[in-house]
Amino acid sequence: MNKVLVVALGGNALQRKSGEASAQEQLSVVRDTASQLVKIIKAGWRLVIVHGNGPQVGRILLQNEAAREQTPAMPFDVCGAMSQGMIGYHIQQALGEMLAREGLPQRPVTLISQVVVDPEDLAFRHPTKPIGPFYDKAQAEALALKTGYTFREDAGRGWRRVVPSPDPLEVVELPQVAALLEAGFIPIAAGGGGIPVARDERGRLYGVDAVIDKDLAACRLADALKAELLLILTEVEQAYLDYGSPQQTGLSHVSSDELLACQGQGHFASGSMGPKAEAAFRFVSGHPFRRAVITSLDLALEGLEGRRGTQVTD
Amino acid sequence: MNKVLVVALGGNALQRKSGEASAQEQLSVVRDTASQLVKIIKAGWRLVIVHGNGPQVGRILLQNEAAREQTPAMPFDVCGAMSQGMIGYHIQQALGEMLAREGLPQRPVTLISQVVVDPEDLAFRHPTKPIGPFYDKAQAEALALKTGYTFREDAGRGWRRVVPSPDPLEVVELPQVAALLEAGFIPIAAGGGGIPVARDERGRLYGVDAVIDKDLAACRLADALKAELLLILTEVEQAYLDYGSPQQTGLSHVSSDELLACQGQGHFASGSMGPKAEAAFRFVSGHPFRRAVITSLDLALEGLEGRRGTQVTD
Repeated sequence: MNKVLVVALGGNALQRKSGEASAQEQLSVVRDTASQLVKIIKAGWRLVIVHGNGPQVGRILLQNEAAREQTPAMPFDVCGAMSQGMIGYHIQQALGEMLAREGLPQRPVTLISQVVVDPEDLAFRHPTKPIGPFYDKAQAEALALKTGYTFREDAGRGWRRVVPSPDPLEVVELPQVAALLEAGFIPIAAGGGGIPVARDERGRLYGVDAVIDKDLAACRLADALKAELLLILTEVEQAYLDYGSPQQTGLSHVSSDELLACQGQGHFASGSMGPKAEAAFRFVSGHPFRRAVITSLDLALEGLEGRRGTQVTD
Repeated sequence: MNKVLVVALGGNALQRKSGEASAQEQLSVVRDTASQLVKIIKAGWRLVIVHGNGPQVGRILLQNEAAREQTPAMPFDVCGAMSQGMIGYHIQQALGEMLAREGLPQRPVTLISQVVVDPEDLAFRHPTKPIGPFYDKAQAEALALKTGYTFREDAGRGWRRVVPSPDPLEVVELPQVAALLEAGFIPIAAGGGGIPVARDERGRLYGVDAVIDKDLAACRLADALKAELLLILTEVEQAYLDYGSPQQTGLSHVSSDELLACQGQGHFASGSMGPKAEAAFRFVSGHPFRRAVITSLDLALEGLEGRRGTQVTD
């Protein structure tokens, strides 16, 4: 049986920074991404795909705001579900097509996935994740009054809604993901970190306004599936010490403890490499037969072979 | 092994006509629907769920139009994928919750599903299915020029976009649906009739602007899964001859040929009972061990027991 690999696809695997946000353009980027994933599948890995949704869910929220007078705006959990449908559709269409052309039998499928968070998570008291469009102060205040949303000034660019980013505890549809993987399919799951849900006192799930970090969600899924490898794809070749400074040093092979120490020394930015290092640490720490790899999309295969990227082991 | 039943949920199973289109209200309707589905599962059927998406995808299109100046409007296939995510999420949350409370082991999951249509289908030359918001004539003409969409005057209520409603040929993710069903899960698939796709000359799938009838898609899925029963849930208790007239007569038990004859005599309206009768006919015709049932949501279980609704056999 081939080994299981959970891959977390970053924003650049789904949309070019400079490109427009049209469906055509997104599909074209996803096709490039799919061709990299095919190489991994050909190398003999059984794949589970987790993807981000930041820009996409931001646009869905914007569309909801724009039509608010005509039709009720959907809450955050529902917008997350819509983004899973949108992004998953493109990935499964592009990847399925490429696998068929290569004569490979595996087929992908997107599962709408809920991820449980703790409503007492401290993140709910400190919403930090900016999402959606920019507003001026008056608009933000009016919307805050009307909707109860929290807004923050964002680096001089205007006011944006901020939502909490709580820790993922459990992928509700884990058994479904495992069954599809077992049957030889490629599950696309926990998209955008998963639809954030919590359990009420009777154990009933309800959607919450939050964004779950997709790297941490991928880690949770990889752990629960007993995957051998967590592959975190991003825009840079590897994790760095002193990133962006003249002393910048790439990390090629690190232990989970070394990675944690670097994290503690503030080498990884909280909005970008931070959660990736955290996910890699969590996945391998205490597990001598696991490995996490942080690298860029185009170096994915070389990263898996241990030749590029940051290799993290226990 | 329990028998397989494909259920097609109509619009009233997802949203009340009088109710507002908020997420809260939709979830509350879906919870009622889920409680009916639990009865069916308890009666020993293995369930596959197909649902409509008319009003929901209409609102997504409206939101896309409203924000068109700020972010690119998504094409119809992508909006369909988003609606599968949105509706599937609510069904799987509500149904999963109820099954857990009843101590039942089955769990639902939504699969993003593509359904292949023939780009030469005559429906593409005659778009008939009205979707999305109403416009006045000038707005419709301007939008038609800008987007290439087709608009039709809709019964004095204004102008609406019309899209083709081609015949579903193949559910692309059929093997994934079958694997989940085999493993004891409840697939929610081909939502809204499926994301409409066609194959280009190289066999590559691409999205098309169309709406596939969800009853015909459910029929296609039921046939491919070799289901024993196709359950079509709608607003009325059964199919009728001379519906709405003083001579109105309910059909309790009909053969597929009798149903076809009634269809030919114009007893079933093209936008409502027509495709349901067509789906029932297609499913049972030539298959002596199959049965199709057309009934209302609250009579579903009695319909399965053969006591209510319209029972269609070969």
